[in-house]
Amino acid sequence: MTELISREIHLVSRPDGLPVPANFQLVERSLKPTESEIVVQNLLMSVDPAMRPALSNNQTKLDEAMPGGAIGKIVNSTSSEYPEGSYVSHRSGFREFHLSDGSDLTIVEPQGEPISTHLHVLGGTGLTAYGGLLVTGQLQNGENVFVSAAAGAVGSVACQIAKIHGCRVAGSCGSDAKVDYLLNEIGIDYAFNYKTSSIAKELHKGLPEGIDVYFENVGGAHLDAACGQMRPLGRIPVCGMISAYNNKGARSEGVTTLSNMIYNRVTMKGFVVYEFVEMREKFLSDMRDWMRDGKMKYSETIMDGIENAPAALIGLLQGENTGKMLVRLADE
Amino acid sequence: MTELISREIHLVSRPDGLPVPANFQLVERSLKPTESEIVVQNLLMSVDPAMRPALSNNQTKLDEAMPGGAIGKIVNSTSSEYPEGSYVSHRSGFREFHLSDGSDLTIVEPQGEPISTHLHVLGGTGLTAYGGLLVTGQLQNGENVFVSAAAGAVGSVACQIAKIHGCRVAGSCGSDAKVDYLLNEIGIDYAFNYKTSSIAKELHKGLPEGIDVYFENVGGAHLDAACGQMRPLGRIPVCGMISAYNNKGARSEGVTTLSNMIYNRVTMKGFVVYEFVEMREKFLSDMRDWMRDGKMKYSETIMDGIENAPAALIGLLQGENTGKMLVRLADE
Repeated sequence: MTELISREIHLVSRPDGLPVPANFQLVERSLKPTESEIVVQNLLMSVDPAMRPALSNNQTKLDEAMPGGAIGKIVNSTSSEYPEGSYVSHRSGFREFHLSDGSDLTIVEPQGEPISTHLHVLGGTGLTAYGGLLVTGQLQNGENVFVSAAAGAVGSVACQIAKIHGCRVAGSCGSDAKVDYLLNEIGIDYAFNYKTSSIAKELHKGLPEGIDVYFENVGGAHLDAACGQMRPLGRIPVCGMISAYNNKGARSEGVTTLSNMIYNRVTMKGFVVYEFVEMREKFLSDMRDWMRDGKMKYSETIMDGIENAPAALIGLLQGENTGKMLVRLADE
Repeated sequence: MTELISREIHLVSRPDGLPVPANFQLVERSLKPTESEIVVQNLLMSVDPAMRPALSNNQTKLDEAMPGGAIGKIVNSTSSEYPEGSYVSHRSGFREFHLSDGSDLTIVEPQGEPISTHLHVLGGTGLTAYGGLLVTGQLQNGENVFVSAAAGAVGSVACQIAKIHGCRVAGSCGSDAKVDYLLNEIGIDYAFNYKTSSIAKELHKGLPEGIDVYFENVGGAHLDAACGQMRPLGRIPVCGMISAYNNKGARSEGVTTLSNMIYNRVTMKGFVVYEFVEMREKFLSDMRDWMRDGKMKYSETIMDGIENAPAALIGLLQGENTGKMLVRLADE
């Protein structure tokens, strides 16, 4: 293949607090793929809260294209395993084209669903919610479940998996429009806007019997309120703490209610999605069944063009998305 | 048996903050045991941090003799199962005599060791350390272990069990005398006085590779420092949070470092000793072996007379004890 031009996003300075556009730079590169290299044109890239802590350490190197989940189409390949026209997922987002030897690519085979779903409900964020709730959180049918950042990509899937298991589900979010979305689209039992209410009081109202499982996405004041209301043998799978990520050392607001963990024998456990990769086939099968039955809905917030990827990330960290935040890099 | 006079301690008002003597009252009662009642003369009673949160709720009723671990001698009985002269442990401390139908009594059979040890190293506090570290904490040989309140009854046993398992052990305590005790008697690798140093800095010095297991007795600033230094797959068995118990709602100082639990996949788990009762025989056998081999030492802080039980509890909550805080109610 001849030379091609790929625009990519570099981190050029580490953010102090909320990232600002000047932390990022759009760089145009000329790529010259070798004979054996697979050329992937990225179609969609994923924007995730976990990218923020990675900006503060060596997971994201300065003056290089940033890492991040993406789905692309193979536009040049001599590999029979990765033929031209295939869709693949990989971790080299934040660039328009990705050159690969294949070892970092996973073939994606849509079964009628939009390819974008493989970056959320059928991808990493879906598996995060599925494994975090069912494995780390040991969810049982009929329990009382609280999900924070419930209108986000992970939270909205966690809410629906809990509903599918007959649970009573309360969710927090950051706008009244998201409250509507949670109650009327996602279909949970109780939703509140944490910016305009007392989290502790809302939890008492929404889950009057207390909380069996708190699916933790936010940290700080959310955890402070929820931990004090955990029931005996409650579990807190810790998926993320978005409220802390912009702070130095990812420190959250202080949590003061942890002594409730003692007598109620509560377990809090951090997890990361790669713990669940072996469950992927069962996960895909369950999720496709639930989507087919109308029990698993999703929402996407899509920004267009690689040049908008920094704005998408900054917006995500301010809660501007409902459901999954994506950047479209090219049409399918 | 004829009438006997028993002095007992009642809670007469609930403490606001640190308990004060006026919260308690010494009451003299006349007991008239029936034919079938077993009469236990209490010899020693246990004073434990967990008694403090129980003063704030219905676990401790007002104007009744307070509950609490004790060892007594049966001085009148027609039961063949609980004969006169037997030693028994039970939960009706804070009184000189206890009348029982036997259902709440456990026979204690010393094998040469002082009877008092059955209220600590061979009793509830020992089993708390044993189960909390080995079961809840999943201790592995050679790990890096931090124990807070390390010179206390539970902490000092936890330290020694960790040493027996080849671990590097750091401990915190509240006086320089206790630092000496931990280094020179209990034999841990690093000890510091948290009142005169930075917990986070001391942990970096004492456990430079980070912490695999934090045996949590204190909460608040201790947890804030330790959680930030947990290693991948670290565990935090939560035994107690004595720093929080005198606060309204048992709220601790704020913990801000919990986001470290995510990427390092840390587990924090509250536990109570009754989870481990089925391990009691193995526990007693292990502990007696370790005591015989000089690997399990203990210290007692003993106050004399039921009238001093409130002072013993207030003193314990201020860290006046080294090792187990006991009150002697009668000579053996």
